[in-house]
Amino acid sequence: MNEYIAFDSAKALEYVQQLGGFFADDAVLNCYEFGDGNLNLVFRIADDSNNSIILKQALPYARRVGESWPLTLDRARIEANVLLKHGAVCEAHTVKVLHQNDTLAVTILEDLGHLAILRGELNHGKTFPNLGRDVATYLATTAFYYSDFYLTPAEKKALVMEFTNPELCSITEDLFFDDPYRPSERNNYPKALAPEVTKLQANLALKLAVAKLKATFFSSPQALLHGDVHSGSIFVDVNTTKLIDPEFGFFGPIGFDLGSFIGNLLLNFVAQNGRISALPKRRDVHTYLLSTIQTTLSDFEQQFKHLAHTKTRDLALQTEGYVESFLVDVLQDAVGYCGTELVRRTIGLAHVSDIDGIEDDNKRLAAQVQALFVGQQLILNASSVKNKDDFSQLLLSLIQ
Amino acid sequence: MNEYIAFDSAKALEYVQQLGGFFADDAVLNCYEFGDGNLNLVFRIADDSNNSIILKQALPYARRVGESWPLTLDRARIEANVLLKHGAVCEAHTVKVLHQNDTLAVTILEDLGHLAILRGELNHGKTFPNLGRDVATYLATTAFYYSDFYLTPAEKKALVMEFTNPELCSITEDLFFDDPYRPSERNNYPKALAPEVTKLQANLALKLAVAKLKATFFSSPQALLHGDVHSGSIFVDVNTTKLIDPEFGFFGPIGFDLGSFIGNLLLNFVAQNGRISALPKRRDVHTYLLSTIQTTLSDFEQQFKHLAHTKTRDLALQTEGYVESFLVDVLQDAVGYCGTELVRRTIGLAHVSDIDGIEDDNKRLAAQVQALFVGQQLILNASSVKNKDDFSQLLLSLIQ
Repeated sequence: MNEYIAFDSAKALEYVQQLGGFFADDAVLNCYEFGDGNLNLVFRIADDSNNSIILKQALPYARRVGESWPLTLDRARIEANVLLKHGAVCEAHTVKVLHQNDTLAVTILEDLGHLAILRGELNHGKTFPNLGRDVATYLATTAFYYSDFYLTPAEKKALVMEFTNPELCSITEDLFFDDPYRPSERNNYPKALAPEVTKLQANLALKLAVAKLKATFFSSPQALLHGDVHSGSIFVDVNTTKLIDPEFGFFGPIGFDLGSFIGNLLLNFVAQNGRISALPKRRDVHTYLLSTIQTTLSDFEQQFKHLAHTKTRDLALQTEGYVESFLVDVLQDAVGYCGTELVRRTIGLAHVSDIDGIEDDNKRLAAQVQALFVGQQLILNASSVKNKDDFSQLLLSLIQ
Repeated sequence: MNEYIAFDSAKALEYVQQLGGFFADDAVLNCYEFGDGNLNLVFRIADDSNNSIILKQALPYARRVGESWPLTLDRARIEANVLLKHGAVCEAHTVKVLHQNDTLAVTILEDLGHLAILRGELNHGKTFPNLGRDVATYLATTAFYYSDFYLTPAEKKALVMEFTNPELCSITEDLFFDDPYRPSERNNYPKALAPEVTKLQANLALKLAVAKLKATFFSSPQALLHGDVHSGSIFVDVNTTKLIDPEFGFFGPIGFDLGSFIGNLLLNFVAQNGRISALPKRRDVHTYLLSTIQTTLSDFEQQFKHLAHTKTRDLALQTEGYVESFLVDVLQDAVGYCGTELVRRTIGLAHVSDIDGIEDDNKRLAAQVQALFVGQQLILNASSVKNKDDFSQLLLSLIQ
């Protein structure tokens, strides 16, 4: 198979059988497709002894809108290679790649079916004690080892080229930084939100801050990012946290991944007002989400600093105080990007089920208003945040 | 000739004759090599009617240290392509490429022999009224058209890959940001300067600021830079200003080129104290250099703003006030990089004839001490410079 062809279940099964090595020779296999994304096919192939693998294949177009929106297959190469790079330094929290075929845009991955997607779990009010620590470990470790602190300049430049990802970056550039801040056919919000959107789109200070975030997204290749750390890209159970789906990976600002993750926790936070009626339970979930945000920030900082103090290879970046100063900038970027995630998930093209799944119209609207408010304030105040306590205070002032 | 071979005059002549098109068919040509750099051969080929061209060939090693320091021939491709890109938007101030052969690392250029190299002219106390305006035009125009303001994100990412230049960037990374700030065998300064160097290398605030400048050099691909804008890369006469030699070109922080140029004017400024004895003449030259720096900064700002206000294609970067904010950052970077140029040209590997050519030992040492002082203060105070008047005041406080 030297040319791309989109698989059906039979073809996926045949491909795996021809490869061999995943199952016993006489295993009876079954295969079904269950992708709910709009960009890829996802097959589960299992034997009758509970052994299973995932075969993911990129489609040459965006599925939801038919074949009219072509999309590079190269993203399968990017995704598999980001997973390999991230897995090499943070095996515990990166889904394992078992095979890749760039021509077919196929990646075979370990099956994480025993875990659950974080977003659904949070929507059901479930909590995961290790989540903040684990995501912090993933973000700090992958960011450090693929940054100027650790890579030689030549290694870094070669990787920047390998992970140049114009088509998928372009989606982020449009959806995060352009569409929500001006009238766009791709925007999506209820009529009742229109007055808020009009105000947002007329707020020059906000648009200026977003322009700076976009410029940083364009021209700040600090580390090899995941590029799409939302609650749908994280598998969890009470002990385990695994990141999947880094097809938006590229060298960008470290604060982008960090801010995206925190933004998703905050989207769930505002959504819970419309999801959980019982006040004590809602308080518990709110407390959990805020404490997870705190843990993420403090563990990220602590782990990145520890790595920088012990393993920085660049001479100049070893200078006392440098990493601390660097991490203030990362935090400010993260706060800003977090804000853009709240805004774009509320009025842009791609929403989150946390909010959209609220059944009561008024409660859903209230959550949207709050997400939009918190998002804008985070963007506007990001540059005044100098440490994680500043961020906590800012956040508490916005959500109470 | 499908394999690299280093030319002598006869081979250079033969190559030009085989190409054809530069001279009349029956022209009597002569060819001589006159490169004084340490990385390249430079031949002048002329007929007896005053027509001439320059053939430049990269050597696969650094000439000054023999064949022991290999250096990529790819820099000839980079140099020719930067000249083509820069020439496409700023023909008036970019030397013209007539032919390129990447395999042979050969570029044929228009002969600028009727002009003179700026450094030698400044060393003789000569002044050029258009210099600041012209260099500002070159820097503003090339930076704008090869930045996120103007390029589409996909065009930009493709060019960043095309102009990835690890080996020559590595030279800058070492010589500008590492060597001068720690003991290094490559450093070069008189014993009498040792106490100043020891203090400099123990100055933590300075080293921290330099680490930030190095990190920005690593990870801020704002525009396609020349990468080596010193007084030896500029041909001038009273009407004309032409930039040559962008083999260090890459996508980097716009302030680097701007700061390098201003740094070279300041190196000449401090050198003139040891060069011109007659006070009125020295004052004139000093006034000229300061006013050229002023013109460079104000014209750069004005021209970049004008381009941004009229030709920015990115939607978010069109936001009112964005370019003004961006240019404050560029200015601060420029002030810092200017400081590193003064420091590295005084105590690092590569010096400038402006200072080294001062005959009197004491006067030369005084110039070195001043260059080192001004350089450090610029690095330390760069972040407090908010506009070009702040910079003027800072500069005047340091040199008077």
